[in-house]
Amino acid sequence: MEHMNILVIGGVAAGASFAARARRLAESAHITIIERGPDVSFANCGLPYHIGGEIPKRDVLAVQSAASLKGLLNLDVRVSTEAVAIDRGNKRVEVKNLDTGRSEYISYDKLMLAPGASPLRPPLPGIDDPRIFTLRNLQDMDRIVTATETGMRAVVIGAGFIGLEMTEQLHRKGLSVQLVELQTQVIPPLDAPMAALVESELRGHDISLHLGDGIVRFENEETHVSCHLSSGKCLDADVVILSIGVRPDSELARAAGLELGARGHIIVDPFQRTSDPDIYAAGDAVETIDRIVNSKTAVPMGGPANRQGRVAADHIFMPGKARPYPGSVGTGIVRAFEVVVGITGWSEKRLAAAGLPYETVSVNDSHHASYYPGAKPMTLKIIWEPESGRLLGAQVSGFEGIDKRLDVLSTAIIAGMTVEDLCHLELAYAPPFGSAKDIVNLAGFAACNRRDGLVHHTSELPTDPQTQIVDVRGKALSEAYPVPGKVINIPFPTLRANLDKLDKTRPVLTVCAFGKMSYFAARVLMQHGFTVASFSGGLKANVDPRTPGKLPTS
Amino acid sequence: MEHMNILVIGGVAAGASFAARARRLAESAHITIIERGPDVSFANCGLPYHIGGEIPKRDVLAVQSAASLKGLLNLDVRVSTEAVAIDRGNKRVEVKNLDTGRSEYISYDKLMLAPGASPLRPPLPGIDDPRIFTLRNLQDMDRIVTATETGMRAVVIGAGFIGLEMTEQLHRKGLSVQLVELQTQVIPPLDAPMAALVESELRGHDISLHLGDGIVRFENEETHVSCHLSSGKCLDADVVILSIGVRPDSELARAAGLELGARGHIIVDPFQRTSDPDIYAAGDAVETIDRIVNSKTAVPMGGPANRQGRVAADHIFMPGKARPYPGSVGTGIVRAFEVVVGITGWSEKRLAAAGLPYETVSVNDSHHASYYPGAKPMTLKIIWEPESGRLLGAQVSGFEGIDKRLDVLSTAIIAGMTVEDLCHLELAYAPPFGSAKDIVNLAGFAACNRRDGLVHHTSELPTDPQTQIVDVRGKALSEAYPVPGKVINIPFPTLRANLDKLDKTRPVLTVCAFGKMSYFAARVLMQHGFTVASFSGGLKANVDPRTPGKLPTS
Repeated sequence: MEHMNILVIGGVAAGASFAARARRLAESAHITIIERGPDVSFANCGLPYHIGGEIPKRDVLAVQSAASLKGLLNLDVRVSTEAVAIDRGNKRVEVKNLDTGRSEYISYDKLMLAPGASPLRPPLPGIDDPRIFTLRNLQDMDRIVTATETGMRAVVIGAGFIGLEMTEQLHRKGLSVQLVELQTQVIPPLDAPMAALVESELRGHDISLHLGDGIVRFENEETHVSCHLSSGKCLDADVVILSIGVRPDSELARAAGLELGARGHIIVDPFQRTSDPDIYAAGDAVETIDRIVNSKTAVPMGGPANRQGRVAADHIFMPGKARPYPGSVGTGIVRAFEVVVGITGWSEKRLAAAGLPYETVSVNDSHHASYYPGAKPMTLKIIWEPESGRLLGAQVSGFEGIDKRLDVLSTAIIAGMTVEDLCHLELAYAPPFGSAKDIVNLAGFAACNRRDGLVHHTSELPTDPQTQIVDVRGKALSEAYPVPGKVINIPFPTLRANLDKLDKTRPVLTVCAFGKMSYFAARVLMQHGFTVASFSGGLKANVDPRTPGKLPTS
Repeated sequence: MEHMNILVIGGVAAGASFAARARRLAESAHITIIERGPDVSFANCGLPYHIGGEIPKRDVLAVQSAASLKGLLNLDVRVSTEAVAIDRGNKRVEVKNLDTGRSEYISYDKLMLAPGASPLRPPLPGIDDPRIFTLRNLQDMDRIVTATETGMRAVVIGAGFIGLEMTEQLHRKGLSVQLVELQTQVIPPLDAPMAALVESELRGHDISLHLGDGIVRFENEETHVSCHLSSGKCLDADVVILSIGVRPDSELARAAGLELGARGHIIVDPFQRTSDPDIYAAGDAVETIDRIVNSKTAVPMGGPANRQGRVAADHIFMPGKARPYPGSVGTGIVRAFEVVVGITGWSEKRLAAAGLPYETVSVNDSHHASYYPGAKPMTLKIIWEPESGRLLGAQVSGFEGIDKRLDVLSTAIIAGMTVEDLCHLELAYAPPFGSAKDIVNLAGFAACNRRDGLVHHTSELPTDPQTQIVDVRGKALSEAYPVPGKVINIPFPTLRANLDKLDKTRPVLTVCAFGKMSYFAARVLMQHGFTVASFSGGLKANVDPRTPGKLPTS
């Protein structure tokens, strides 16, 4: 271990975490980081927020410098230096100083590849226009800051996490923003109904949404860029942000003959070792294990990258004690103005596409005790394995406390908990923070009711004329959010007295605002011999609860 | 099951939840709730907040009425009705209408006891003064509202959760408040250092704290109540709030010959059945199982009460499918002005008192990415079983995001997770919500470092003159928060160049602000052959991070 030569390619999340942990474990190792860009260890997740001015000071994003890393960690950091080739036979890397153009070799005993991932920039006609940006590093950020000003027209292409953050921040800076997304919803990892609140929020801030539409070419006019979409629409832009995904920067690994996965990610073992035992890799460029179904996946996020870097260092310097990287569940969260939405684990559509069995339920509740001022509505959808009840995924949307429920559910999923276990989680309750029965408990109750055969849920309004749709809400809500089609209105407190208004030979669907009263009504009717389903999550789920509006099904 | 007679004594959390679930499962049962007070199903956790005006409308606390419960759940609710005796042989309860004075018998097939717990009111001299209040129900609340006004002097006796909430709310209403607590800290369930931030916050709001002091007698003057403390102090009060704990209202159960625990709680099985199989009990009056060590405990909180009521109803009406109540971990949270603190599971002092083995570490970090505006410091202490690494408890203190970490850790404890598992929890990260390495991950890292022998922690400054105390903070911090005693100042980035200032034959204690740099320094020194301990959690832990102040050890 003494005086081991450690070379790290890429000095941001995974690479910087690796180097820091390596130094903690091996004071005498010689650790070199080479980084193509001029910065190491910058806060890449913060870039959009400086563009919008929400993080006013640029220098807080430059977490460390070569000098500070020398002082703190005794690292030899070489910025503006590119790795040209890995010479595995001689255990050395050819590097090129991008300022001087000079090349040299750096020897290694152990090499860490943390090259990250590049924003996709497809070879569309007109894509080379300097007004079309991607966002990866501080320099990209600076260019966008310089190129944007109040009153400009922006087109953001791709409504994933970064696209949404850029949309929000450009709007914050005073630009008018149009958002284009190939999928028919924003935030493609979510199930569509869970994205509806974000869409409503964006439209409420005058963001034009172009969903189910893709960019096909750009026309580079003198005064603007014309963005031509597959629908035939043309959007004029002073500035275009491309945020349609990333691909792993694995060319160096490929050229060195390291094994890559189907989508070009570097294949690693549970200790982050590549197919060459002296070469490790971590971060956005690697393939990892999905903790839920134990399949291959890639999760280009800061959390996994940091922790993978740490695992690799442990494996080099304390191999007997190192613990494997357990894989990722893919927890993600994004804010769009007042609305927050997040996902952990698998979505319903992903499970359906993979042909895996699942069940799901959505519940609505306040983020803290409803009687305490400021209670905001939220929706929680959980998804589980039918046979075992094991949680497979969760999605949360609302305004406050979204991250909390997401983190509890991510923890529950990682623990292998079932929906039964959710019933008896003991979450912090004082009026400003939660409820005696938190929405996470409620989701467990609803799932167990389903599993016990106490209720049948449906998430679509029936189209057959046989089914009696019974709206059990009070008059005010029924009028504010009318159910489309032929509906029988029986407010729940009067249901027991009005059973004769319903035909026991025909199926019943009960609907309400939040899915609670419709469940109550279903229980009453089932026990009186009706065949009943309850509309899961209620009619107000997934539409902006602050303003009456269209139903998700209309 | 048809037309089963269900009688519920007590109609608040456990009783109301039981009755609601019972109705869902048994439409045809006859369900009667008797409640001594004039209200059922009120929001008892909200009472302090109406007194302070933070919940301005009283009627939001009266969640349901007898009439609304008739409509929603077809319940026969009798308020102002007291259960006088249980006639188990004839399966009936003698009840007395407190308005008319008339008694009658109500028969039951199954009886639910949900009597709750009463605030303690010890027989001290002068305690019957009408200016001395306890807080249990809406009527107590109303009396306190009427009795208090701006400018008055309040003495709150007992600095637990309710006492703190009352302190905050009386201050909010404009009273000057003195807080008396028998323990030498506020919030006795916490380990003392974790309560220090709350104490600082209270003092910052001109709350006088009288810790380690108890009430011995009251003197009932014409203009005020004199509160005489065991220290000899005498506090003058226009109004006194007694919040020194509760005792189970189990007299009825005792008189009926039901088995009670050592502290008077009703003993129940995992389905909430008492020693009489036709009598169930739930809520603050029962003994339950500690989920962590499987011992007997009592957790007088709203969450457990509600869920126990549900379990009992399931056991009566779907016995084959009912799932046992798994026990409680005792998650609690309280806000004191800007500060929030919470606990889940066992504290260090409780483990020590029980003679159980444990290890613990404290970490400090921001509640979200430090580069994103508004990051607030927080402290997390975790406690685990030395051999297995299994989590036994956690405490969190700070300003924002406390409930989130508490809920994640409560879930982890319930799941039986180890400190190793905390390292790879995948918590939601976007700059407004978290960090790439959340404080929960950091706690896992710190615990694993300890278990792997990478660091030795201490939580006390040494008094022996042999130990070299090395302060590795920068000059500014060292001056703002000086370490008491003889200290060698070596800012961490200069440590490697200054090893010759230290004597390798003598032990070293490294200290810093948050426990991170001192760990870094310990690693450097250990690898250079020094015997080192790092000061766990740092010197700023547990003192108000907003203002320089006294160290916890000074």
